[in-house]
Amino acid sequence: MCQLLGMNCNVPTDICFSFEGFQLRGGLTDHHRDGWGIAFFEGRGCRVFLDSKATIESPVAELVRRYPIHSTNVIAHIRKATQGRIALENSHPFQRELWGRYWLFAHNGNLENYAPALSGDYRPVGDTDSERAFCHILDTFRREFPNGPPDEIALFGVLKRLCQDIAAHGTFNCLLSNGDALYAHCSTQLHYLVRQAPFSCAHLVDQDVTVDFSQLTTPEDRVAVIATLPLTDNEAWTALRTHQLVLFRDGVPVEGL
Amino acid sequence: MCQLLGMNCNVPTDICFSFEGFQLRGGLTDHHRDGWGIAFFEGRGCRVFLDSKATIESPVAELVRRYPIHSTNVIAHIRKATQGRIALENSHPFQRELWGRYWLFAHNGNLENYAPALSGDYRPVGDTDSERAFCHILDTFRREFPNGPPDEIALFGVLKRLCQDIAAHGTFNCLLSNGDALYAHCSTQLHYLVRQAPFSCAHLVDQDVTVDFSQLTTPEDRVAVIATLPLTDNEAWTALRTHQLVLFRDGVPVEGL
Repeated sequence: MCQLLGMNCNVPTDICFSFEGFQLRGGLTDHHRDGWGIAFFEGRGCRVFLDSKATIESPVAELVRRYPIHSTNVIAHIRKATQGRIALENSHPFQRELWGRYWLFAHNGNLENYAPALSGDYRPVGDTDSERAFCHILDTFRREFPNGPPDEIALFGVLKRLCQDIAAHGTFNCLLSNGDALYAHCSTQLHYLVRQAPFSCAHLVDQDVTVDFSQLTTPEDRVAVIATLPLTDNEAWTALRTHQLVLFRDGVPVEGL
Repeated sequence: MCQLLGMNCNVPTDICFSFEGFQLRGGLTDHHRDGWGIAFFEGRGCRVFLDSKATIESPVAELVRRYPIHSTNVIAHIRKATQGRIALENSHPFQRELWGRYWLFAHNGNLENYAPALSGDYRPVGDTDSERAFCHILDTFRREFPNGPPDEIALFGVLKRLCQDIAAHGTFNCLLSNGDALYAHCSTQLHYLVRQAPFSCAHLVDQDVTVDFSQLTTPEDRVAVIATLPLTDNEAWTALRTHQLVLFRDGVPVEGL
């Protein structure tokens, strides 16, 4: 099974602490060695780092771990290949442009007999079920709202229906962001927490590292972290329910609870 | 003025030597401090590293300089902002998908009164003339060939006409690649060379570094390097002519000479 990690904040925040534990799941504390990727939104722009190596062997992961890129929306993924060979074009997150914004997507799970009709506006480059699902989602968004983005609630409704349709083909835990908001869909396994004042210490599950967030934050900071499995062992993570879609904005869930 | 660097090879090759000299033009030997980017194709996949810092201050550039990523098609760009603020979304190369392949594009120059009619299939995310030109190119490709890519010569003809139209608005030196081939258009300044057997030593213009390619290559290797200005001072660089479009494939120019 792949591992997902997402972050949505009200002020640009670095993900170094969460990534520290997360990257160990790419070949050390868990068996996902088939590539990885991470996308950082900075305003409308986006940096995407992809690698077909395991995170624990990847110089790019080492850079990400040490270089504090500040972002309000992050999506990361460690791959355990199910469909599609181990190759850069099959590494998540996938990126496309819609309505003059970049959209990033990562998926954990496996879809069987999933061959949606695509208009051709978005075509998969690789051969994963995941990229097909992403193209299907953006294709549907564009057909339903050809003149530009609708309000957030209307888009949420379309995405919720789409996720249910796709999840009928198998496991569909996923993260989707356009840099403004982050959507998280749970099929089998996805957890989140919100860090906000009063901040305290957090201790990683995957190695003996503790951070005292009260030393690194201001009282207004708010950060939602979403992960396949809890990354820390002394904080209150909430498990999403099956078929639950949650919209995170400014570090809190605003729709779908 | 921005700086462009491209590489097209018959076998995956690292660009460390050329990038060594090129990156110094981002703030040290030349005055281009407004961001940079580099894209490496690996098969159908692509890694894009972007930074709004100057290359000489960028940890990401340091990674690229030291981590030998092997690629058959590379496009790099150092930005001197003319239109569009200094921001990640305005850093080249720009990426989009067409016909199930990623396309990467970088531009050097400035276009005045350039507002092409766009269908909406490709919309700029940032606010540069360069990204508008890229969207215009892919938009036209898609409209002319809605069912998929035509043969290489037909696409070359459409791109040549497009480049001439766009260059009527100002300076339009650019590089475009889909991972199979690399197109280079010269408006004012673009040079290339082909390295092939018998290989010899090359010495950088921007610093006192020499590489003996005969030690690093096999007799079958062939690499075309394209750059705004020659990167080495002891090799025979060819200047492209105004309005010349050249298609590189497998390390040699195959069309447009």
